[in-house]
Amino acid sequence: MFINKLIEGIKEKKSPVVVGLDPRLELIPSNVKNKHFEKHGKTFKAAAEAILEFNKGIIDSVCDIVPAVKPQIAFYEQFGIEGLRAYNKSCRYASEKGLLVIGDIKRGDIGSTSKAYSTAHLGKTEVQGEALGAFYSDSITVNPYLGEDCLNEFLGDIKEYSKGMFVLVKTSNPSSSQLQDLVVEGKKIYEKVAEMVDDISKEHIGEYGYSSIGAVVGATYPEESKNIRRLMPSSYFLVPGYGAQGGTADDVIHSFNEDGLGAIINSSRGILFAYKKEDKWSEKDYATAAREAAIKMRDNINTTLEKHGKKYW
Amino acid sequence: MFINKLIEGIKEKKSPVVVGLDPRLELIPSNVKNKHFEKHGKTFKAAAEAILEFNKGIIDSVCDIVPAVKPQIAFYEQFGIEGLRAYNKSCRYASEKGLLVIGDIKRGDIGSTSKAYSTAHLGKTEVQGEALGAFYSDSITVNPYLGEDCLNEFLGDIKEYSKGMFVLVKTSNPSSSQLQDLVVEGKKIYEKVAEMVDDISKEHIGEYGYSSIGAVVGATYPEESKNIRRLMPSSYFLVPGYGAQGGTADDVIHSFNEDGLGAIINSSRGILFAYKKEDKWSEKDYATAAREAAIKMRDNINTTLEKHGKKYW
Repeated sequence: MFINKLIEGIKEKKSPVVVGLDPRLELIPSNVKNKHFEKHGKTFKAAAEAILEFNKGIIDSVCDIVPAVKPQIAFYEQFGIEGLRAYNKSCRYASEKGLLVIGDIKRGDIGSTSKAYSTAHLGKTEVQGEALGAFYSDSITVNPYLGEDCLNEFLGDIKEYSKGMFVLVKTSNPSSSQLQDLVVEGKKIYEKVAEMVDDISKEHIGEYGYSSIGAVVGATYPEESKNIRRLMPSSYFLVPGYGAQGGTADDVIHSFNEDGLGAIINSSRGILFAYKKEDKWSEKDYATAAREAAIKMRDNINTTLEKHGKKYW
Repeated sequence: MFINKLIEGIKEKKSPVVVGLDPRLELIPSNVKNKHFEKHGKTFKAAAEAILEFNKGIIDSVCDIVPAVKPQIAFYEQFGIEGLRAYNKSCRYASEKGLLVIGDIKRGDIGSTSKAYSTAHLGKTEVQGEALGAFYSDSITVNPYLGEDCLNEFLGDIKEYSKGMFVLVKTSNPSSSQLQDLVVEGKKIYEKVAEMVDDISKEHIGEYGYSSIGAVVGATYPEESKNIRRLMPSSYFLVPGYGAQGGTADDVIHSFNEDGLGAIINSSRGILFAYKKEDKWSEKDYATAAREAAIKMRDNINTTLEKHGKKYW
């Protein structure tokens, strides 16, 4: 099961940190990207090869210290077909290096369409009787606006292929409150979503008491995290918004249960482009800088967990 | 502006029908697909080439009688990179044939990520100072669960490149009521979303009094359509759920304003695979059968509009 592999990875690496692979071409070091532009010109192919090389550098550098990466597909989609090829290759490379891959795709649609997304990212596509894999992920993010029949379409592949999903419950952006915090019969919309996801998640609990069906809960809303933690005791939280979006170790502490488990904390820019933030680094040190940033983040979170008596390692 | 082009297309072709390009490999005629499998084996490349050839046949056959097509990207994504290449080529081919392309991608994320999706599908991606187009659409569908700051990220490209978007308000699936119909302070969630989208849409009104920012409103909820029509008088509705999902001409009538404008009605399976439904068609007639189905659907809707005094042509 996905959730067992995730928890084993967290314990083995003593880290609940997820590295968000959200490449920004303008921030990729010139020693990585220039040769591709020299070879392929100002093209998507050059951009995609630069991104892939950059990602491989990051993956090689962090694969022994974090359990998972989370590529955000939008940052690849903007480079067209070539960009999505780099997405797919990055996912597969990360998997080969022992990392779990959380495809941050935020899909969700009516039944038959959600099933097609599930096939694309979690399952296998049948082509004249052959079962082929399209995109690789161990888990994905899913948008709940269409309700349960949308979410249910992913469950078959999750069971068959030992995958997982994280459903958006409370997102990290400023206007997430606009819909998600509206109050219905004394409950906020995100609480209604939390209950809906909790219901589904119960069928997918692994040996450590957690489910392969989790929730996205933004680091930028610590009070809401505390609340959602109570509503979904057996769901793992994927927590974005740490670092560049303003979330701190103190903000994410309530996403963890008393056993120190229950949450993985994502940082993208803060790790990928750490080399930009300190004078001691030059462009060629980008992977080392990323490793150091991931270690620092891990230590910050682990220290905060220990302070709250939530040690998991 | 997108909305002007859409209305001119509707009037010129005397049809508010949108053909949903949701290819299902198992339903594509063998005379279209077999040669690709013979050439490329049981591969995504073969599947993608079969889909592209099928789509071109449909596009050629309907391009003079409908204003727009709506490819659903999930059905391409499941065939991986090659599938997305077929998506992109289908979109560009439809555009060359004078059709507007509504990319049914249902994206939506935090600010910087939504901007990347906008760049990918509506705008241009900068690669070393060159502005390149990744995927082609004239308008896209967007999910509102993250609130206004997500939606706002698309507006710059909509303005700059004369594009549009349709925001999910009330979807056509059975469990859409689960979140969308919850009542907050006397208003349903979908009404709240309708008001939010209406606010944004006012800045993007074209010469016929309609906005390039529209709404997705399922054909399967006629009462709700009537209600949303009142809340968003200047928004165009993209109406899925006609035909295979159960919606009829009588169900969609309330999505139109008194001027006979205000809605485009999508059918996917009912048009694409019309050749399967009558004995008079053989596999090689699939494009003719699709044309006849699109004409029949247009005539049904136009007759119903006339009956209600909502004639636009």
